[in-house]
Amino acid sequence: MTARIVLASKSPRRFELLRNAGFSVEVRAADVEEVPRPGEAPVAYVRRLAQSKAAAVTANPDELVLAADTVVVIDGRILEKPADAQDASRMLRLLAGREHIVYTGICLRHGTEAPVVDHEETRVEFSALTDEEIEDYVATGEPMDKAGAYGIQGYASRFVRRVDGCYFNIVGLPVSLVYRHVSAILKSCPAR
Amino acid sequence: MTARIVLASKSPRRFELLRNAGFSVEVRAADVEEVPRPGEAPVAYVRRLAQSKAAAVTANPDELVLAADTVVVIDGRILEKPADAQDASRMLRLLAGREHIVYTGICLRHGTEAPVVDHEETRVEFSALTDEEIEDYVATGEPMDKAGAYGIQGYASRFVRRVDGCYFNIVGLPVSLVYRHVSAILKSCPAR
Repeated sequence: MTARIVLASKSPRRFELLRNAGFSVEVRAADVEEVPRPGEAPVAYVRRLAQSKAAAVTANPDELVLAADTVVVIDGRILEKPADAQDASRMLRLLAGREHIVYTGICLRHGTEAPVVDHEETRVEFSALTDEEIEDYVATGEPMDKAGAYGIQGYASRFVRRVDGCYFNIVGLPVSLVYRHVSAILKSCPAR
Repeated sequence: MTARIVLASKSPRRFELLRNAGFSVEVRAADVEEVPRPGEAPVAYVRRLAQSKAAAVTANPDELVLAADTVVVIDGRILEKPADAQDASRMLRLLAGREHIVYTGICLRHGTEAPVVDHEETRVEFSALTDEEIEDYVATGEPMDKAGAYGIQGYASRFVRRVDGCYFNIVGLPVSLVYRHVSAILKSCPAR
């Protein structure tokens, strides 16, 4: 399968995951406000944002649009991208020595069909971290553009003891879930 | 921590994992025969091979040598690298739609201290695969140099539904386990 995907996301990590999995990808992203509604649960939030992002880009009827939103959740609270270095340290202190959950909502939009919306959930267990380890890690700059203030595929690989679920979901896109939905959509449209 | 590691492995994936985690790495690998002894359990096998590989390279007393060996195990049988495309297809048919275990043995050798030997175990769940998916995947060439005939970080990312344990162990090196041991060794030798 060499499906071509219009990726409604500026995340270089999502682009790379899709390319590594053998998809042909074109990036076409629009800005969408990312703010949870009062009382909105994390799963509802990431699914809603994925839908909004998919709807916000212009596409031809024969194009397959993929959008996604990823959040880190601990103690029922959503951690998005840190505002600054201090905020990143605060998030890492929350995550250290404990388990948290990563949710990614995805939306696949194709022609006039109803969009396919789904989500993936992965549990992540961090090692205990010293203040020095947190400071050193924040100083690398890696946490700044990432939900929950860490990049599992980078320096933070040393801090993650265990994952339970789809690994790629933590990086920002549940690749096997996307693949299953894309395969089903292509099967229903053999002309593509 | 910016420890310098002598990596006793030619695996480009292990090199990259260590570099991504912030280690400084020099590759210095020797060839070691990789054959399980009659009745040898997978854990005993990967630990023995890691020790042999670490012992087979020449190092100064102040250098830290890291060696590793990774196998895929299903139904109690060890899958190593496939011999040819047919062998790769056979392995993938075994893995499809089921859970298997990846074991990596590691050995850290430093000066005249007794080497540190440990291992990591990760469970991996594959999606069901059609014959066409297996054929297409084998045709990419990706399975040929990998234990169990798949590379989770490549095309096979679309086939892996779930992992339970250290993700990097599946790629070939349990990064957080290595980091914990390296940190402990460096703490006991503050002069380094």
